[in-house]
Amino acid sequence: MRYGGVEAGGAKFVCAVGTGPQDLIRASIATTSPSETLEQVIEFFRGVLKNGPLAALGVGSFGPIDLDPDSPTFGHITSTPKPGWVGVDVCGEIRRALELPVAFDTDVNAAALAEYRWGAAQGLENFLYVTVGTGIGGGALVRGTPLHGRSHPEMGHMRIPHDRAEDPFPGTCPFHGDCLEGLASGFAIERRWGVQAESLPVGHPGWRLEAEYLALGLANLAAVLSPRRIVIGGGVMHNSELLAQIRERLNQYLNGYIHTPGIVAPLLGDDAGVLGAIALAQRKIEAS
Amino acid sequence: MRYGGVEAGGAKFVCAVGTGPQDLIRASIATTSPSETLEQVIEFFRGVLKNGPLAALGVGSFGPIDLDPDSPTFGHITSTPKPGWVGVDVCGEIRRALELPVAFDTDVNAAALAEYRWGAAQGLENFLYVTVGTGIGGGALVRGTPLHGRSHPEMGHMRIPHDRAEDPFPGTCPFHGDCLEGLASGFAIERRWGVQAESLPVGHPGWRLEAEYLALGLANLAAVLSPRRIVIGGGVMHNSELLAQIRERLNQYLNGYIHTPGIVAPLLGDDAGVLGAIALAQRKIEAS
Repeated sequence: MRYGGVEAGGAKFVCAVGTGPQDLIRASIATTSPSETLEQVIEFFRGVLKNGPLAALGVGSFGPIDLDPDSPTFGHITSTPKPGWVGVDVCGEIRRALELPVAFDTDVNAAALAEYRWGAAQGLENFLYVTVGTGIGGGALVRGTPLHGRSHPEMGHMRIPHDRAEDPFPGTCPFHGDCLEGLASGFAIERRWGVQAESLPVGHPGWRLEAEYLALGLANLAAVLSPRRIVIGGGVMHNSELLAQIRERLNQYLNGYIHTPGIVAPLLGDDAGVLGAIALAQRKIEAS
Repeated sequence: MRYGGVEAGGAKFVCAVGTGPQDLIRASIATTSPSETLEQVIEFFRGVLKNGPLAALGVGSFGPIDLDPDSPTFGHITSTPKPGWVGVDVCGEIRRALELPVAFDTDVNAAALAEYRWGAAQGLENFLYVTVGTGIGGGALVRGTPLHGRSHPEMGHMRIPHDRAEDPFPGTCPFHGDCLEGLASGFAIERRWGVQAESLPVGHPGWRLEAEYLALGLANLAAVLSPRRIVIGGGVMHNSELLAQIRERLNQYLNGYIHTPGIVAPLLGDDAGVLGAIALAQRKIEAS
């Protein structure tokens, strides 16, 4: 049985059909207005459905999103800074148009699920997935299931120590200024140094600062979640030295009080998000 | 059927027998050396067992403790700064002496469970319990079960922003200096101001700082766990104005990006720990 997956991102929506990494067929749609973008998503799957049924569809979305099943706005995007997308019922629009069971979660919870099924966290029921790209997000598996509460984690918005004498940059988060995302996201790097992370040379002092902030964030996440492993990816992590620098500092910050979890790169790369959406769809069927 | 509970604390071990708040019989034992303390605990329950059987015994312990069922040191206290207690097999000693099923978890996970069963979080499968006493600890329920990972959370050891110009106090944590516990525990208050928290007058500037640090800690925990409610207790919270000050600042820190969870005092007070130990024992039997 085939499954559909949508990775709903701020820049693009990736749609895919398949059952896992071995048979994925995908299409990428630029994120413009909600109506235009969702129409193209629905069009893609209508085409797919002409060639045979789908068991279910999973959507891993940017957010914040409403994941409270008792809420009248379940499945909607809530307080995103992205213009036009506040209050959009991503899950409902797709479900009503395609008349399929739709599983809905955050992009990072979906990616965590994919790394658990097929990637760098196979067999680890309790682990943490973090992505450092334009923004910073995290998803956690607890007993093999994505961590939810009232809604979902927004790990990038933790406050961490910020020495304004050493680093006077005020942070880029429109809600919190110098939260972790405000200090260490790809967007923050670009604003602070005037170049995108991929163009900031290895050895630039900005990378020392980046490792420090990310290690502080991971130290907090380790203290709260006690993960067996931390999988950390995203565009900013493409710097070849960053992972080792984070490991070293994390060890210093935890200082032997709690076990330092292993920190590894994801195995699924850019496919984690959409594979996670497929995994969400599979779990919906498995649970029913 | 009766259950036994032990709240294993750094200052005292509270032992109890019963089924809940309505029929609790308890005894308090000063925490001295491990052998002396555990002998008295075992003696208490040997007396109890003469009057009838116990279905199981729960232990909620100070820590850090090893909760990895695959670990050879499962049930042991690990890196505590408390002299003499590193490596003590609290769970195993009690189980072997009394030949009863023993459930073992942290003191704060146990207390969270008690507030969920009988207290301020009834019916809330996802919530957070925080205690601010000599130290700072947190337990979380996720889908109605205490959050574990490789081991258990050590939430008090998160790093938070610390403005050394405004507050030059270096923090008291022997492992991390100015982590949340190092800045805002009862021990930190005592060291910073030279008086115990209970003697620091309402209106003293130390309370503004306390509310700030605790709100930063709770903001981080809300960002990671998305709890439906935060129950916050412990000796330091006895200041009648502190809860309102924390609520106000937490709202400012979250700034509408994510929902601000309700923050309430515990309902079980000093009994939460030992009632949680009873609840651990009950869960062990319910699960078997």
